[in-house]
Amino acid sequence: MRLAFLGGFGHHYLRGALAANPDWQIAVSGDGQDSEAAKHLGNAIKGSHWFDDPRILLDEFKPDIVSIGAIYALNGELAALALGRDIAVVSDKPIATSWATLERLRELTNGTSRVLLTEFPFRSQKEFRAARWAVQSGQIGEVVLATSQKSYRFGAARPSWYADRELYGGTLLWIASHSIDLIRFCSGVPYKRAIGTGGNISRPNYGTMEDHVAALYELSNGGTAIVHADFLRPQSAPTHGDDRLRIAGSKGVVEVRDGRCLLISGALGERDITNTIGGTPVHEELLKAVRGESTEFYSTQESLEIAAILLQSRDASEGQSWKEFAG
Amino acid sequence: MRLAFLGGFGHHYLRGALAANPDWQIAVSGDGQDSEAAKHLGNAIKGSHWFDDPRILLDEFKPDIVSIGAIYALNGELAALALGRDIAVVSDKPIATSWATLERLRELTNGTSRVLLTEFPFRSQKEFRAARWAVQSGQIGEVVLATSQKSYRFGAARPSWYADRELYGGTLLWIASHSIDLIRFCSGVPYKRAIGTGGNISRPNYGTMEDHVAALYELSNGGTAIVHADFLRPQSAPTHGDDRLRIAGSKGVVEVRDGRCLLISGALGERDITNTIGGTPVHEELLKAVRGESTEFYSTQESLEIAAILLQSRDASEGQSWKEFAG
Repeated sequence: MRLAFLGGFGHHYLRGALAANPDWQIAVSGDGQDSEAAKHLGNAIKGSHWFDDPRILLDEFKPDIVSIGAIYALNGELAALALGRDIAVVSDKPIATSWATLERLRELTNGTSRVLLTEFPFRSQKEFRAARWAVQSGQIGEVVLATSQKSYRFGAARPSWYADRELYGGTLLWIASHSIDLIRFCSGVPYKRAIGTGGNISRPNYGTMEDHVAALYELSNGGTAIVHADFLRPQSAPTHGDDRLRIAGSKGVVEVRDGRCLLISGALGERDITNTIGGTPVHEELLKAVRGESTEFYSTQESLEIAAILLQSRDASEGQSWKEFAG
Repeated sequence: MRLAFLGGFGHHYLRGALAANPDWQIAVSGDGQDSEAAKHLGNAIKGSHWFDDPRILLDEFKPDIVSIGAIYALNGELAALALGRDIAVVSDKPIATSWATLERLRELTNGTSRVLLTEFPFRSQKEFRAARWAVQSGQIGEVVLATSQKSYRFGAARPSWYADRELYGGTLLWIASHSIDLIRFCSGVPYKRAIGTGGNISRPNYGTMEDHVAALYELSNGGTAIVHADFLRPQSAPTHGDDRLRIAGSKGVVEVRDGRCLLISGALGERDITNTIGGTPVHEELLKAVRGESTEFYSTQESLEIAAILLQSRDASEGQSWKEFAG
């Protein structure tokens, strides 16, 4: 197996597979604009080959799979380069910060067996899978109101390109995307229309980077979803992220917080169902999807669909009125 | 003191003052449309005088204060009757389910010393006062993102007039109003514009009654607020209500849940500040406001302002685009 890591800004979950596969050939490159962050990654992966230019890596190293974690707006361009060479792609989100990029990715995958997966690690975590199980197995009846929070520490600083809207793409794509994907993944109910807002009060040095965003959705069944994300988690908080999900249904409420999944339904009162299903390491699930062994959690189709939902949501939150989702 | 209770559907917090004031004269009446529920109240207050008709009560019993808890759309009409007779009014929310009613209440109080207070019990509770203190004293820096949840049990049944939009007024006015008031009370930041949605999936027998509503606000400082309310709390849940508030600021996060207020700010990590300020029984605070001794928590001005915010929010959630608040 020949695996390449492009860019130094993503999560690169496939690193999780390296320890168990010492025979794999590994290469690392910058993302075309920034090599500094990727070099740290390259130095951390013993025996990896370094390329300054991702195009040269693709042509000379000829990887079977690329893991992309670039300056966010470049993820999609690198994915297109790899797909055009029939290389399987696992990318951090967002895979598209513009409709033009998404259209290019659709063209490159449509009617082919090319693989384009987006890393949404929550889909692999047991607490969220338990919430999804609760909905799918009818524990909460029909989904009525779904809410999700993603709150991160900002840390001492973020890369300066966060202030460049064209390169950063927006906090909805970078952070709220987890929650937007999660509600769709766990509730199973499609989004019907969206509106939203956001702003930046706490980090004026980062200009157009929103320190918070919020999106409101009407679901296709008449229910409602709310997503909000922020960079406001204090440094002194006990953990880096404060990720939450609550789905209230006609017969019960399921909720994830602090890594636990709690269900209230039927006559049993509140109970912890975190371990009902169990999770899988993200890299294992992604590799299964690359090999075509499982498409339940990650697939090219899902990647393209959620990318469109995210762009639509961002458009909606920049507009004045509700925006309907296509189809 | 002559105190009258009109209607059998509200909380009537002034009942809390009766035990300590056995010399007060008490009367109870229906709300003009329903006497059944009010009769239960009358029977529960020993020695109270019963009137079928609230107008006759006002003219014959001549109360100093009326406590109103009627079929929701009638609160404002009864308040107008009392104000026109220079009787102080303490009413459950909503005090107005239409702009015409609100306009009438404005006319009746404008330039007078007449008293019209709305019961918002959260303003008297120590956990929410602690959150307000945290914001006012600068613990969380500037307010960026405020969210609040109100979730109730529906119970076995609700009055049949919940299905009549004209009488019920909407779940935003009845339940979400607590959260909308709370964010304004605790954050101190005015609402700038609103949009929202809602629906009814779980209680089809109640027609236009929303089993959930959600409202999204832009705040005047560029921050965002989100409110959602639902009737979806399962009967088997440990408590009747699940009321939450989270205010994330530029320097910290304060949060209320399960009756506790937690603050994360500075270097101290998370700490419980629930008892920082302390609460007051709602009836004591309301009576102080009636006597003109304190207007910090309840006042005629606040009643009218929040009533306008609620109607504006309901309009916004029924429309297609953002609605700006006046002023």
